[in-house]
Amino acid sequence: MNLILVKIGGNIIDNPDACAAFLQAFAQLPTPKILVHGGGKIATQTAAQLGIETNMVEGRRITDRPMLDVVTMVYGGLVNKNLVAQLQANGCNAIGLTGADGGIIRSVKRPVKTIDYGFVGDIEEVNASQLQSLLNSGLVPVIAPLTYSREGLLLNTNADTMASATAVALASTYSVNLVYCFEKKGVLSDPDDDEAVIDKLNPATYLEYKSTGVINKGMIPKLDNAFAALKSGVDRVTICHANDLLNAAIGDAGTVLTA
Amino acid sequence: MNLILVKIGGNIIDNPDACAAFLQAFAQLPTPKILVHGGGKIATQTAAQLGIETNMVEGRRITDRPMLDVVTMVYGGLVNKNLVAQLQANGCNAIGLTGADGGIIRSVKRPVKTIDYGFVGDIEEVNASQLQSLLNSGLVPVIAPLTYSREGLLLNTNADTMASATAVALASTYSVNLVYCFEKKGVLSDPDDDEAVIDKLNPATYLEYKSTGVINKGMIPKLDNAFAALKSGVDRVTICHANDLLNAAIGDAGTVLTA
Repeated sequence: MNLILVKIGGNIIDNPDACAAFLQAFAQLPTPKILVHGGGKIATQTAAQLGIETNMVEGRRITDRPMLDVVTMVYGGLVNKNLVAQLQANGCNAIGLTGADGGIIRSVKRPVKTIDYGFVGDIEEVNASQLQSLLNSGLVPVIAPLTYSREGLLLNTNADTMASATAVALASTYSVNLVYCFEKKGVLSDPDDDEAVIDKLNPATYLEYKSTGVINKGMIPKLDNAFAALKSGVDRVTICHANDLLNAAIGDAGTVLTA
Repeated sequence: MNLILVKIGGNIIDNPDACAAFLQAFAQLPTPKILVHGGGKIATQTAAQLGIETNMVEGRRITDRPMLDVVTMVYGGLVNKNLVAQLQANGCNAIGLTGADGGIIRSVKRPVKTIDYGFVGDIEEVNASQLQSLLNSGLVPVIAPLTYSREGLLLNTNADTMASATAVALASTYSVNLVYCFEKKGVLSDPDDDEAVIDKLNPATYLEYKSTGVINKGMIPKLDNAFAALKSGVDRVTICHANDLLNAAIGDAGTVLTA
């Protein structure tokens, strides 16, 4: 059976009109399907309003205790529940989850090496059978970028990684189509030309683009994740614009990655 | 089959030690079970920190758009997800839900009569079969005091009412034991004496206590709800201290209401 797992980036979530259009398209996809969402700028804005400083190291948020509360509120509450309510209004039986809910994604607090990222989780286990049981009852999981530890801590977790780990865990049961939606039309061969979409990437061409510096820094963790998912049994990975979801779902838009 | 539905009040949630002890007890109850939680003071505090004023009319929060975002963050995110993560650490397979998730509790925005309560929901329908399907797969729903409308609005909703409406909706399938836990040992015959617990209440004795003013104003909506639930097929309703949950679950603590 086919399963489509869509990751939607924070930039789309920050734009109400773009987000509404995306959700309308997502609601039209056949089930079983899963949505994993990023955080967006609302956490940073809310933290600032609460007088909590945002510290980023190499593009990653340092999550101290007050910031953990903010991301729990914003990702697990405000963003997740509004996505769910809008999907329900679009006839899609969404259920909002963090990794803690149903114990679907457990992690460990990242060990401190040179940098203390704080309450950040590295994924340990995805509970595929629990997810499958939700999917079987016709529900559409909408997953926020938070996981939990055995000790009952909530942990801020990278949404791209959650999407690929979930796709991999479900690949033994389903033919998984993993689609990363963001604000560009795909992986670009020229960062200044939004139309310069690379149609197809395989590990060899990816290496080449990386070595020549064509593929920029921000895309590398996402692509590394994506190729790892393909290697671990995920059928197809596509990186596309949120507006192109329906075409990308049938392999007809964005950058298609092959093993 | 028996089902226990526990409502936990905001005052317990506001106290981390009391809340942890309560969750440990709740985790020990047999399944199927459901937890419905109130909001607590964190929403008011968070709103104040964000510069949003809290307006209460007759003990009810006026929920304008900024306040709706705050309660969505706090009830649906911070409170709900921390309860879930703690229950998971206690070996209880909790899943945090608002009414929007799985479409379990739909409401309508309260019509404006003399007072405009804003984004507040009056419950229209509880989706018992969806809840039953979650319960059948071994999950323990943890329900935040938010519902949704057909239009995809999230709506702030009274947790006591959500608990009784859910208990009633499940009463055709289960023998439902509804337990309201709060910071007192039960319904008191003397508001200044915490030990003056009324062991049993039936509609006749309740009327008597109301007419003589023994039962105070704050308890009346809770008790009206509770008696209505008994009338609609709920087996037993108990009002007790959060510390007494395990005894109250077997009818051995608090105030037991009978039809």
